[in-house]
Amino acid sequence: MIESSLIAGIWSPGSSNTFISWDPANDCAIAEYGESTLEDVDTALHAAAEASGILRVQTPMQRAVFLRCIVGGIENLGDELIKTARQETGLPEARLLAERSRTCNQIRAFADLVEQGSWVQASIDTAQPDRRPSPKPDVRSMLSPLGAVVVFAASNFPFAFGCVGGDTASALAAGNPVVVKAHPGHPATAMLFARAVSSAIDQCGLHKGSFSLLQGQNHQLGAALIEHPMTKAVGFTGSLSGGRALMDIAAKRPAPIPVFAEMGSINPVFILPDALGRRSKEIAAGLSASIALGTGQFCTNPGLVITLSGSFAKQLAEALATQPGGCMLNPALAQGLHQGLSQRLAMPELEVLTGGAGREVTLRPRNTLLKTTAEHFLATPELQEEVFGPASLLVECDSVDRMHQIAAQLRGNLTATIHTDNPQGPAVKTLLDRLSRVAGRVLFNGYPTGVEVCPAMQHGGPYPASSAAATTSVGTGAITRFCQRIALQDCPDSLLPPELQNANPRNIWRQVNGEFTQAAVELA
Amino acid sequence: MIESSLIAGIWSPGSSNTFISWDPANDCAIAEYGESTLEDVDTALHAAAEASGILRVQTPMQRAVFLRCIVGGIENLGDELIKTARQETGLPEARLLAERSRTCNQIRAFADLVEQGSWVQASIDTAQPDRRPSPKPDVRSMLSPLGAVVVFAASNFPFAFGCVGGDTASALAAGNPVVVKAHPGHPATAMLFARAVSSAIDQCGLHKGSFSLLQGQNHQLGAALIEHPMTKAVGFTGSLSGGRALMDIAAKRPAPIPVFAEMGSINPVFILPDALGRRSKEIAAGLSASIALGTGQFCTNPGLVITLSGSFAKQLAEALATQPGGCMLNPALAQGLHQGLSQRLAMPELEVLTGGAGREVTLRPRNTLLKTTAEHFLATPELQEEVFGPASLLVECDSVDRMHQIAAQLRGNLTATIHTDNPQGPAVKTLLDRLSRVAGRVLFNGYPTGVEVCPAMQHGGPYPASSAAATTSVGTGAITRFCQRIALQDCPDSLLPPELQNANPRNIWRQVNGEFTQAAVELA
Repeated sequence: MIESSLIAGIWSPGSSNTFISWDPANDCAIAEYGESTLEDVDTALHAAAEASGILRVQTPMQRAVFLRCIVGGIENLGDELIKTARQETGLPEARLLAERSRTCNQIRAFADLVEQGSWVQASIDTAQPDRRPSPKPDVRSMLSPLGAVVVFAASNFPFAFGCVGGDTASALAAGNPVVVKAHPGHPATAMLFARAVSSAIDQCGLHKGSFSLLQGQNHQLGAALIEHPMTKAVGFTGSLSGGRALMDIAAKRPAPIPVFAEMGSINPVFILPDALGRRSKEIAAGLSASIALGTGQFCTNPGLVITLSGSFAKQLAEALATQPGGCMLNPALAQGLHQGLSQRLAMPELEVLTGGAGREVTLRPRNTLLKTTAEHFLATPELQEEVFGPASLLVECDSVDRMHQIAAQLRGNLTATIHTDNPQGPAVKTLLDRLSRVAGRVLFNGYPTGVEVCPAMQHGGPYPASSAAATTSVGTGAITRFCQRIALQDCPDSLLPPELQNANPRNIWRQVNGEFTQAAVELA
Repeated sequence: MIESSLIAGIWSPGSSNTFISWDPANDCAIAEYGESTLEDVDTALHAAAEASGILRVQTPMQRAVFLRCIVGGIENLGDELIKTARQETGLPEARLLAERSRTCNQIRAFADLVEQGSWVQASIDTAQPDRRPSPKPDVRSMLSPLGAVVVFAASNFPFAFGCVGGDTASALAAGNPVVVKAHPGHPATAMLFARAVSSAIDQCGLHKGSFSLLQGQNHQLGAALIEHPMTKAVGFTGSLSGGRALMDIAAKRPAPIPVFAEMGSINPVFILPDALGRRSKEIAAGLSASIALGTGQFCTNPGLVITLSGSFAKQLAEALATQPGGCMLNPALAQGLHQGLSQRLAMPELEVLTGGAGREVTLRPRNTLLKTTAEHFLATPELQEEVFGPASLLVECDSVDRMHQIAAQLRGNLTATIHTDNPQGPAVKTLLDRLSRVAGRVLFNGYPTGVEVCPAMQHGGPYPASSAAATTSVGTGAITRFCQRIALQDCPDSLLPPELQNANPRNIWRQVNGEFTQAAVELA
């Protein structure tokens, strides 16, 4: 059997329980892999706990160098990475090249963040020994790493949300060891990334427990990773049912731990009449491209379009029919899409404008647009469940008020979008306020796919979009998920971490007695 | 029946299920109260959801004025508040006066914070329309209120963690409506606070659903509050069993919500040999006062003392015996203390140095110090469970290494303390690092009781000390618990909240393209 698991520096073939990786473009098996064992889980997490003690006291520069070595290692994988991922995912080369560059850039962004250092949110309140009735102590606090983080890699972004995607990069950047469970859809791609991390660990002379890669698809393995007492937090990107299962396991632990799960979202797009009047053709083109992008397998895929009744439905359907089709990432997703569409098509209130489910499950589905009335949508909560793939539901309303009514009834989403050319219009502010309550990100005159990796990004949202609406899984803000806050009271300056020392040797931004400053603390 | 519940502006007597409030100093009943009903829960939370839509769009100044009106209302309660709380808690007048002033000060601190405005963590990334291969959008994000927050008031701080304590103040400051479940130990005290909030709501012309007070002690009421679909988050201070029960209910909801529970902690105090050699008398005096403070009913009560074998145990016991005794807050706590001590005293490895359990449950327990060996402590995880009251366990070690071994085996705590006069000593750094992993706050040469309300404070810690080690329930940082992050992409300036507008009309600190600044955004 292939040595596909990397357990604290040792490659291992796993057990005699096996799973098969699949080439979706050619619909055939690629290779057989042994699943990691429960013993592997225990070994990886004990080693991670040991490594944690070392990683947490690294200097920020050491941590930044480690992250940059990982980028070097990924770049050194060269064509092999793209070829392997193409075979395991069916994604086109151009997309994979772009995703690799995004993945390397986001790791670099974390390296820069860590090197700059202000992300630790240092806060210093100086002592007032003469205060009455009781003296005020000196209190200083900052974010500090949590310990071993378990990351479940996603299927749909084999690089950016994969083995060394945003969750792993942010957890490492915060100073935590990471144990990754690869997505069973791309075990060989994950192995290549693990090779890159492993060589960075060697280059930097770090503890081998800083990173492990486990392989497998059985639920017991996932449960064991979450239940292990050394696990301090979990990162996940995937389906609502998968994410909720992990949340439930974590909540039942003797000591519950946080699960940062990014799950289902239908990303509603509201097209106001003024925009429709002026730019319907342009919107139909942009929106249909967003629906079909990556064969619809994006967390931010626009699965719901809300407009007034009229000709736009036909226009969008025609545009969508001309968008190129693609390949589903794996048979399970193809099966899920077929089932989701079939359930919807069984409703007489739904009309197929283009595409449809077909009789058989296929890895190459047609781009699909369904249509229904506002009344049926409002009466049918199931229509707010995600159908993962190149499919969207257009809801026709008889008035803008009705569109508002839909906005008010939405569940949590990653994004919501408003198209309008008249932002001063009377109803836009209200609509924005409503959507801000149910979505992590509200876009104007754009399309939700394509999530910018930047400090202000919010990729998360109220349940079921994510498990923690205050946090993001994209952008540098993701680092704070894997931290706890530690305060030191009356601690001698020499024992303080540099971030909290009077002289501010790291020259970071801090709050001193509640005021932002880069200045040193001058004691009276 | 007394009209003791305030449901969205209407005082109500509750149901025919009743509970009795108790005067612990005189060990007698005070009054009978009707428990709030499940209908009250539903009414309060529907009204809160309605109020939420109004509160979230208030200006920061309006919100600050509301908070300051609440302070005015509390101050207007005058002696009646102190008298009522004395009767319901048995706490001495001086303590209650100090706690009232702390409670008003912390609400004022939130008003100042909200008025200043930088707490929203505004982050702005400006657009780069010409970027290749794809244009960069304009993305701006900030913290935004969550919606209705349910607060379970604590027994041990009838003001500071009570009906309008830190949880309520921080949730209101963030722009959320609050539904409080009063602690059944002080229903009348809670009513007075509700009167103060209610009059502030009237003065400011706010929606009556902005605040409700429910009364009762049955578990069904608590469960209904957490299970209600309009509830978006929960604040709690109390026992581990109570907090865990709430966490479990919240985790099982169709849409799980965060519970910010501050629970059990034994707050270990490590006294290194050098400190013991020079200041043993001073430490015995300070530590015994901290153990006995408030009849030991503080979350940060030092329940565990770790030293080398020697004469200190006797010295501490003698000092503790001379500390004034006090009254337990209620019969349930007296019962819990008796049970906790009796279980420990049944272990032959534990020695009573002063005090003890006595045969009968008493509301006026003796200050108690128990002693055991490091070996027994390390072999007995139950000794890490909190015994709430004026009692502590001293663990004698044969070496500093053994003290470190104990530090490495500790569960999560709110605080840990190191006493040393030689902070450069070889082992201090290691001990600090170990304790930073298991405690939210590490103190030097102090005593953990008395939690300063300041921006840098961390009052929280790894489970079981709290449910969310990244957050604090004391200090202005508590406000972020009751928020989600919202991003706006390519939003017209006129529709942005002031905090995110180019001109920075609120003059707050923001991150613009990753850099901290108060400057306006200049677009190219």
